[in-house]
Amino acid sequence: MGKKKVGIVGGTGYTGAELLRLIVGHPRIELSLITSRAEAGRQVSDLFPNLRGRVDLCFTEPDEAALRECELVFFATPNGTAMRKARGLLAAGVRIIDLAADFRLRDVEVWEQWYQMKHVCPDLLPEAVYGLPEINRQAIRGARLVANPGCYPTAVTLGLLPLLESGAVAPQELIADCKSGVSGAGRGASVSMLMGEIGESFKAYGVPGHRHLPEITQNLEAIAGEAISLTFVPHLLPMIRGIHATLYAKITKSMDYQAIFEERYAAEPFVDVLASGSHPETRSVRGSNECRIAIHQPQQADTLVILSVIDNLVKGAAGQAIQNMNLMMGFDETCGLDSPALLP
Amino acid sequence: MGKKKVGIVGGTGYTGAELLRLIVGHPRIELSLITSRAEAGRQVSDLFPNLRGRVDLCFTEPDEAALRECELVFFATPNGTAMRKARGLLAAGVRIIDLAADFRLRDVEVWEQWYQMKHVCPDLLPEAVYGLPEINRQAIRGARLVANPGCYPTAVTLGLLPLLESGAVAPQELIADCKSGVSGAGRGASVSMLMGEIGESFKAYGVPGHRHLPEITQNLEAIAGEAISLTFVPHLLPMIRGIHATLYAKITKSMDYQAIFEERYAAEPFVDVLASGSHPETRSVRGSNECRIAIHQPQQADTLVILSVIDNLVKGAAGQAIQNMNLMMGFDETCGLDSPALLP
Amino acid sequence: MGKKKVGIVGGTGYTGAELLRLIVGHPRIELSLITSRAEAGRQVSDLFPNLRGRVDLCFTEPDEAALRECELVFFATPNGTAMRKARGLLAAGVRIIDLAADFRLRDVEVWEQWYQMKHVCPDLLPEAVYGLPEINRQAIRGARLVANPGCYPTAVTLGLLPLLESGAVAPQELIADCKSGVSGAGRGASVSMLMGEIGESFKAYGVPGHRHLPEITQNLEAIAGEAISLTFVPHLLPMIRGIHATLYAKITKSMDYQAIFEERYAAEPFVDVLASGSHPETRSVRGSNECRIAIHQPQQADTLVILSVIDNLVKGAAGQAIQNMNLMMGFDETCGLDSPALLP
Amino acid sequence: MGKKKVGIVGGTGYTGAELLRLIVGHPRIELSLITSRAEAGRQVSDLFPNLRGRVDLCFTEPDEAALRECELVFFATPNGTAMRKARGLLAAGVRIIDLAADFRLRDVEVWEQWYQMKHVCPDLLPEAVYGLPEINRQAIRGARLVANPGCYPTAVTLGLLPLLESGAVAPQELIADCKSGVSGAGRGASVSMLMGEIGESFKAYGVPGHRHLPEITQNLEAIAGEAISLTFVPHLLPMIRGIHATLYAKITKSMDYQAIFEERYAAEPFVDVLASGSHPETRSVRGSNECRIAIHQPQQADTLVILSVIDNLVKGAAGQAIQNMNLMMGFDETCGLDSPALLP
Repeated sequence: MGKKKVGIVGGTGYTGAELLRLIVGHPRIELSLITSRAEAGRQVSDLFPNLRGRVDLCFTEPDEAALRECELVFFATPNGTAMRKARGLLAAGVRIIDLAADFRLRDVEVWEQWYQMKHVCPDLLPEAVYGLPEINRQAIRGARLVANPGCYPTAVTLGLLPLLESGAVAPQELIADCKSGVSGAGRGASVSMLMGEIGESFKAYGVPGHRHLPEITQNLEAIAGEAISLTFVPHLLPMIRGIHATLYAKITKSMDYQAIFEERYAAEPFVDVLASGSHPETRSVRGSNECRIAIHQPQQADTLVILSVIDNLVKGAAGQAIQNMNLMMGFDETCGLDSPALLP
Repeated sequence: MGKKKVGIVGGTGYTGAELLRLIVGHPRIELSLITSRAEAGRQVSDLFPNLRGRVDLCFTEPDEAALRECELVFFATPNGTAMRKARGLLAAGVRIIDLAADFRLRDVEVWEQWYQMKHVCPDLLPEAVYGLPEINRQAIRGARLVANPGCYPTAVTLGLLPLLESGAVAPQELIADCKSGVSGAGRGASVSMLMGEIGESFKAYGVPGHRHLPEITQNLEAIAGEAISLTFVPHLLPMIRGIHATLYAKITKSMDYQAIFEERYAAEPFVDVLASGSHPETRSVRGSNECRIAIHQPQQADTLVILSVIDNLVKGAAGQAIQNMNLMMGFDETCGLDSPALLP
Repeated sequence: MGKKKVGIVGGTGYTGAELLRLIVGHPRIELSLITSRAEAGRQVSDLFPNLRGRVDLCFTEPDEAALRECELVFFATPNGTAMRKARGLLAAGVRIIDLAADFRLRDVEVWEQWYQMKHVCPDLLPEAVYGLPEINRQAIRGARLVANPGCYPTAVTLGLLPLLESGAVAPQELIADCKSGVSGAGRGASVSMLMGEIGESFKAYGVPGHRHLPEITQNLEAIAGEAISLTFVPHLLPMIRGIHATLYAKITKSMDYQAIFEERYAAEPFVDVLASGSHPETRSVRGSNECRIAIHQPQQADTLVILSVIDNLVKGAAGQAIQNMNLMMGFDETCGLDSPALLP
Repeated sequence: MGKKKVGIVGGTGYTGAELLRLIVGHPRIELSLITSRAEAGRQVSDLFPNLRGRVDLCFTEPDEAALRECELVFFATPNGTAMRKARGLLAAGVRIIDLAADFRLRDVEVWEQWYQMKHVCPDLLPEAVYGLPEINRQAIRGARLVANPGCYPTAVTLGLLPLLESGAVAPQELIADCKSGVSGAGRGASVSMLMGEIGESFKAYGVPGHRHLPEITQNLEAIAGEAISLTFVPHLLPMIRGIHATLYAKITKSMDYQAIFEERYAAEPFVDVLASGSHPETRSVRGSNECRIAIHQPQQADTLVILSVIDNLVKGAAGQAIQNMNLMMGFDETCGLDSPALLP
């Protein structure tokens, strides 16, 4: 059984590094090329020394002809890049998974307002499939173009999905208090992400408005089938990997909430509902594609508290991209994604 | 002007260490003795090497006669210790600040339920003053017995106080999503607080019920003048010092919320209201007695988000104890508490 | 091809956790039982939540009959345990890898002096093979009883081996300045390993004498074929995984040192000699079984500086144990050990 | 007693932040101005929120007239800046402390080789006093121009000084294995200092050659009165503040080494010799101007191991600058430097 050829555009950030790590361990695919204007000519393993002896490629200048030889191309680029290349590759029969935000929002006006640029291929938006397998598995299988979800949207959507589907909570009073490790902010040079600025400290950021808000809202409204209202507050953790979403929802219907979650996710390979009373730790998913969830109803009052953890670089980015690729290629969904988390 | 004599009972934990650091730098007091059964005979500076050359005392066996020589005694002991010694010391004219929880709750039944022990001097509870100067300054000045607030209650109460006083928000729908550094858990040997367990990870804990919940509730009900309902979720940060409280409240009255905070805290030496749109960092108060607060109304919707940070060992424990002592002794309230935070 | 049965005695520490993680991903073996007196009856995945859905066993009371059913048993126990069980298991035809120190030193007197206990089976010491494949590969293949090396000894020995073999440096003036993450200290409750004590700080420890000194000395003398003298200073890093050994050796013979290392390790699957001028990072081996080494001759003076990094829990413990097992069982040496390090 | 006016040129880095913190707490001086081209017009407390309410100045464009009004000016600038302004300020009677490297090396050729620029006022070098009070106290008192030592040179020089002065060790075989927190690398935007790159990892850097090598060599040769040879290996710690120097020296004369250190530093206010067998922690000096030192002779062999810790931003930079200023101004040497370290 020959391996399928895949390519990566722009793999010099943390998402790219993680994609490389997962591709190295995947038995059904091989990496044909990885492009980066800035690092063209440099050994991949020189930038990411963990890949010494595993990846023998150099970064190359973006080369559309070479990309067209791939069965599937991952875009691990900044926002606004994939939309410029998508049409050509799709026309050549190449399937695309964009790990950035270009194809995540249905509404191009909302997209242009939050991302502050003109969308160059709004006509592709209706075709793009939002790559959250727990919602869109069937559509992903047949998709040519998959918009890989954001990290916060993955943790929040999976944490609220069963409640909104079952009508157990008020869609108008949702709160998502989210905490992320610094790798979510990428590998670009900046003062604000220096160890000297971030270490031994904690803060909220983007409270007035964060780009993941419209994405989460779009997800939750599709699930609820009605308008929702969400207060979303992201925070920055003094650590590298992991997202912890603490979700608050007002109960409208008395149900066995634990059972709702367990049933909804019974067949999901990457969503793990913990026993009642549990507190998931981000380290329990470090390096793995799992989302672990616990449900609480403190003091038996009318507010549910859902705790949802993922590794932002795996289930929140590269791992979910591989999961989507597995579905698109007809591989086993868990192929190449079965390593347990690294703990401690 | 002679220095006043103070004593510490049980100063081998982090609260004790911080109290020692602050006492060393306080110009109006001197430490007469510090007791610890476990460490009796050991140099204080042997346990806390930052105090070499500053503190020349040894820990001693608890000695009530010596404590009676002090003007004021701090209890930096586990819960249940101060209540056993309080009556004798008060009778001898010694004033007391208990940094543990023995005198924080008015309702002895609630206390006994949450702390799982019998209270030995419930008759002293009515006299005990809850030592949050921003609420009880006048009473603290005259108090013989001060219950120093918990760390979470300090951050949460200061963050919600102006809103509840002004009736701007619904007292029945309050949420406090709190994050604490590990020093809040104390210096006792335990697997769960090992660096190998806590580093590079994040989790909630005590969601079903945490002892600070009744304390916060008591504070907020006294402010609101009515029953309140609070969902309180504490989390553990992979860092040492700092609490960040992210508070959610439903608006009931349209007001200039920023102005409410600025006015309420205009004369407060240790509460700093940041400009609108700010995100306070815990490091901005590391080692200092300040509480920094920012107010947000995301998307101009009906949920206010208040961000409140303190150093759990200073404004959340030892610093607030010194502030209370300053009031009780008639010193300047900021005496010995004027060092800026250590940043970076 | 049926899987071989293995057992673990005492797998509740970090070494045990890592062994479990690696066994889960190993295609040729299956875990039959894991024993722990303290945690008997508890689900393994309850203690190590990263293994939820991967390990379905409970810890059991040590049961010698069940252990005798295994082809190979790992001891991930405190020092002094394996030596009590070894004879019985060996007699039953079970092969043993001890991850503790019971069989590491040839000289029983030296062992008893450093480990402060009586050795109960000194007669087994001559048979025990020191499990560093880069030195003892052939002997390991045939061994019944393997003493898995300590973490520091692995990093230091691999860093000095080519120099001592080639007689390039003075064996009497060796220095090993080593830094370890906290997981090396184990998972026992202790004040000194609390996050509040270790975070944001750095210190040396055990400078007067550390148990790994005689082990390293034994290794280096065997290589050098003469007495050596080593100054060994271990330090504790405020992080979880990783050892960095900075080694200093006095040049006695001018040679192409880079070439000596490259040649010595050309065929080694887990030793990676970096290009001249490199500085290996511990994160480049986090979670992987590799040792990465760089050679420097600062200012072209007469002192060589060797930088050697491993993950203390993998090549420094559980990974090397799996490597040894692969050799003993006739599997491919890298089987189950081919995942790249987790970076970032 | 009026306060003396001081100024800071270029205070937007970590050294500047620390200088500001110490100046705020100093009773004898007041800050007249702080300049920064990049941040001109911005509130100092906006950049460093720990100074809110303590520093009411804005950064201003460099203004030589205003600087000439100061009694003393600190340069917390990149290398190559102070040398451009020194002559004018000195001519105006302003005294200067340069926290960068412009005046640290006596030999202008060596300086130009290591700092890769032309020195613009080599004629001032003979006048400049190297600001290590433990060596040059008397000269500092009368100096117009003080070169504040580097962080590594401070820790290493204080650790070796008593041994070289007493001729106890071989000056030709010195080794300094140093570890620094990230704040030593400054506050400039860079990928290599991101939390995502530095957290949970450890590495050496600059092994082929680091600019502090000629500075340390100059210090040690002046002390020894002969040529020395030093192998200097710096490493980067995953934490913010603190330097730990582990120093190795070959014994040439049998002496009571502990006594040598204790006598040499008996009168030094900021050097603390720990009891024999101790291991100083960097946290024991976090935020304080102390250097703590311990002496070991492992296995009673012929290599001494000296452990020396400082806070790189205090005794290694801003604190030492204040100490020098105190000497130059005739203040008490410890004025404004008496706060104990922040622990935990």
